[in-house]
Amino acid sequence: MNANKNPAARLPLEGRMLRSLLFAPANQAELVLKFPRAAADCSVLDLEDGTPPSQKDTARKNISDLVRQVRALGLTGLLGIRINAPDSAFFADDLAEVVNCGADAILIPKIQKPDDVLTVAAAVEAKGLHTALFAGIETAAGVLRAPQICECSTLLQAVFFGAEDLAADVGGRRTPEGNEVLMARSMVLLAAKAAGILAVDQAVVDIRNDALFTRDCETGRDLGYDGKTCLTPRQAALANQLFSPTTDEVAYAQRLVDAYEDARARGLGTFDFEGKMIDTPLLKRAQRILSSV
Amino acid sequence: MNANKNPAARLPLEGRMLRSLLFAPANQAELVLKFPRAAADCSVLDLEDGTPPSQKDTARKNISDLVRQVRALGLTGLLGIRINAPDSAFFADDLAEVVNCGADAILIPKIQKPDDVLTVAAAVEAKGLHTALFAGIETAAGVLRAPQICECSTLLQAVFFGAEDLAADVGGRRTPEGNEVLMARSMVLLAAKAAGILAVDQAVVDIRNDALFTRDCETGRDLGYDGKTCLTPRQAALANQLFSPTTDEVAYAQRLVDAYEDARARGLGTFDFEGKMIDTPLLKRAQRILSSV
Amino acid sequence: MNANKNPAARLPLEGRMLRSLLFAPANQAELVLKFPRAAADCSVLDLEDGTPPSQKDTARKNISDLVRQVRALGLTGLLGIRINAPDSAFFADDLAEVVNCGADAILIPKIQKPDDVLTVAAAVEAKGLHTALFAGIETAAGVLRAPQICECSTLLQAVFFGAEDLAADVGGRRTPEGNEVLMARSMVLLAAKAAGILAVDQAVVDIRNDALFTRDCETGRDLGYDGKTCLTPRQAALANQLFSPTTDEVAYAQRLVDAYEDARARGLGTFDFEGKMIDTPLLKRAQRILSSV
Repeated sequence: MNANKNPAARLPLEGRMLRSLLFAPANQAELVLKFPRAAADCSVLDLEDGTPPSQKDTARKNISDLVRQVRALGLTGLLGIRINAPDSAFFADDLAEVVNCGADAILIPKIQKPDDVLTVAAAVEAKGLHTALFAGIETAAGVLRAPQICECSTLLQAVFFGAEDLAADVGGRRTPEGNEVLMARSMVLLAAKAAGILAVDQAVVDIRNDALFTRDCETGRDLGYDGKTCLTPRQAALANQLFSPTTDEVAYAQRLVDAYEDARARGLGTFDFEGKMIDTPLLKRAQRILSSV
Repeated sequence: MNANKNPAARLPLEGRMLRSLLFAPANQAELVLKFPRAAADCSVLDLEDGTPPSQKDTARKNISDLVRQVRALGLTGLLGIRINAPDSAFFADDLAEVVNCGADAILIPKIQKPDDVLTVAAAVEAKGLHTALFAGIETAAGVLRAPQICECSTLLQAVFFGAEDLAADVGGRRTPEGNEVLMARSMVLLAAKAAGILAVDQAVVDIRNDALFTRDCETGRDLGYDGKTCLTPRQAALANQLFSPTTDEVAYAQRLVDAYEDARARGLGTFDFEGKMIDTPLLKRAQRILSSV
Repeated sequence: MNANKNPAARLPLEGRMLRSLLFAPANQAELVLKFPRAAADCSVLDLEDGTPPSQKDTARKNISDLVRQVRALGLTGLLGIRINAPDSAFFADDLAEVVNCGADAILIPKIQKPDDVLTVAAAVEAKGLHTALFAGIETAAGVLRAPQICECSTLLQAVFFGAEDLAADVGGRRTPEGNEVLMARSMVLLAAKAAGILAVDQAVVDIRNDALFTRDCETGRDLGYDGKTCLTPRQAALANQLFSPTTDEVAYAQRLVDAYEDARARGLGTFDFEGKMIDTPLLKRAQRILSSV
């Protein structure tokens, strides 16, 4: 599971964060043109669920133009396009159009198996491009095969977990606490991290419930997710904040690293620090926090 | 994992629900003959744990008769028989007898690997029958191989998850909250849904605790389970209710579908409905509720 | 997954408990020499995280002596040594030294794949020894491959799950409740039990919080873990207690077994006992409790 861990192979996103992955329907230009102000780490024009079937052809035809317009407005984050699922009637046309339209990332929803990614990777490589691919894992089959999917292509640089789609696929219901998707959400995270790629957590559809969104971001961050699927600019702003370390966390990390160096100088690998027995894993987590600010 | 998704191959159970899977010991005719009044979606004569070793031979010999008697009393749901586990001394005799006795389903407990199902499938097919098989996943090995088990045979139409047996297998303890089996319970559900078959949730052995049973049904339903293992007619009646949508859920689903059609007519794929950002997965879940009533 | 279930192949640990796995840095002789008083089921001299890089060579050179000294003080439990991880610069030297120094168990941290265990197994077997191996599963890749790791060698007799290391590997955070590692912790347990080996649960680094440690032991025991990673003698004493059945549990188990025998004598396989519907799995759990005292 280390094939993808070669940093050279991961250039397109290297060093970029994915704290917020903000979606807007590709057929609603007025929402898309607000992307620059929202300042998400990655903004996504959605040809899939966000665009109804009757609008897909027009939206697809206009998408290169829209990409140019939104970039011209000074977008600083990454720009992605979500195409329709590999088993849909729109997939082939979407892929043919999108591979050429200058996006930083192509998001492929409802990935069931490695081949669903490899088809898109082949189309990108055939053009001599290095567009990043993000795989949506949001079906039962996709979750069960997440380890194989995550390591299938060096172009694949992130996965996003779709809890609403998964619940629809298996006939489940969503709860605010989310235990019903905890195993799938954990599995997708582990698969991504074993492959050395980024992982973006589930959406919160209650778009005016900041408390729920905050709690869900924290749960995702505890699991190890790098960021959040966002449905509004407000959610993107919150996610950018919640997936960055707090001042307290940074201060604690600095104290821990200092204490660790002091302990090592005294020949200790393990020591008692503010009530916790500290050794390498806690040091690593502190160092990661310090390196992210 | 789609081999089994062919609806033609799934005829025996097609369109049937498994909200309640009610067990009674095969050696207690007076309990079995109450099946018609209990109205479970599937009633099961249990030759395994419900029948003690000293009674198994007699119970097996009488089972065809008992099947006829209970059907004669007007049973409306499906009728199944649980045989003993593939690695038990009773398995061969059970299978030889049960394959011929006119049950709708054969339940095989403690499935560890696909071969445990395939042996029974071969015996059924050798008689030219299409009896449905239900696999019990209730050991550590079974849970880890659930994806392979669920897709191994087109006769396999449902799995049932056994939390008490799993706890006995791994040396764990059960709690009312059930976090100790959440991963296994989720894994079995995902494996079943990836294979396109039905999934029946764990039993609640506290048979006079309706509140706990209700809570456990709701948790199972949130995960995506289709129904519940039931130990009493009372539990079966509750499960039939709890695995059907409520009036409120049906009304909400209808409002959502109406709003969705309206949004689509206005060219929108995503829209704000009663505080939630709605798109395809929530539509699908609403449609599923409406189609089940 | 049954290859390892042959009891003959499991002799080194046969019948031994692993309620407490107590670590002390191999370079701190004064802590190591307290092992006999702590009475952990297994005490471990730690050459990995507990010993800082600058001390590793000296600690390794002294370890055979230290093993002799601690045994001479009358250690009753097992004695293990944790070497450095297979992908570290210290691994080869550690292995060459430790394989000969008379420990009952070699603990290998951060196992990512079966080969990491097999390398150590080959070194042990080349000396004609039967030292038990304990594998640390504490990375995303290790968790995903836990089933294959657990069944890869008959010398492998236990796994220990490392939640702090896993959180460091995936970039997550730990919470007192621990839902962020529930899936991994469950997966490791299931993999161990499917292979028929012992499983030791995660550490609690808050070394002065007995309430948290107790709660975490109970959660681990509910999952099926056999014991706990311990960072202090105090934790080892608590773990020895918490992973043994209570007087109430023993009394309940005895009542249940008695009632079961009585029911069987009346030809019943299932019966109502103190509010619960009892059959084989609950009997098995009661028998296991009685056999452990």
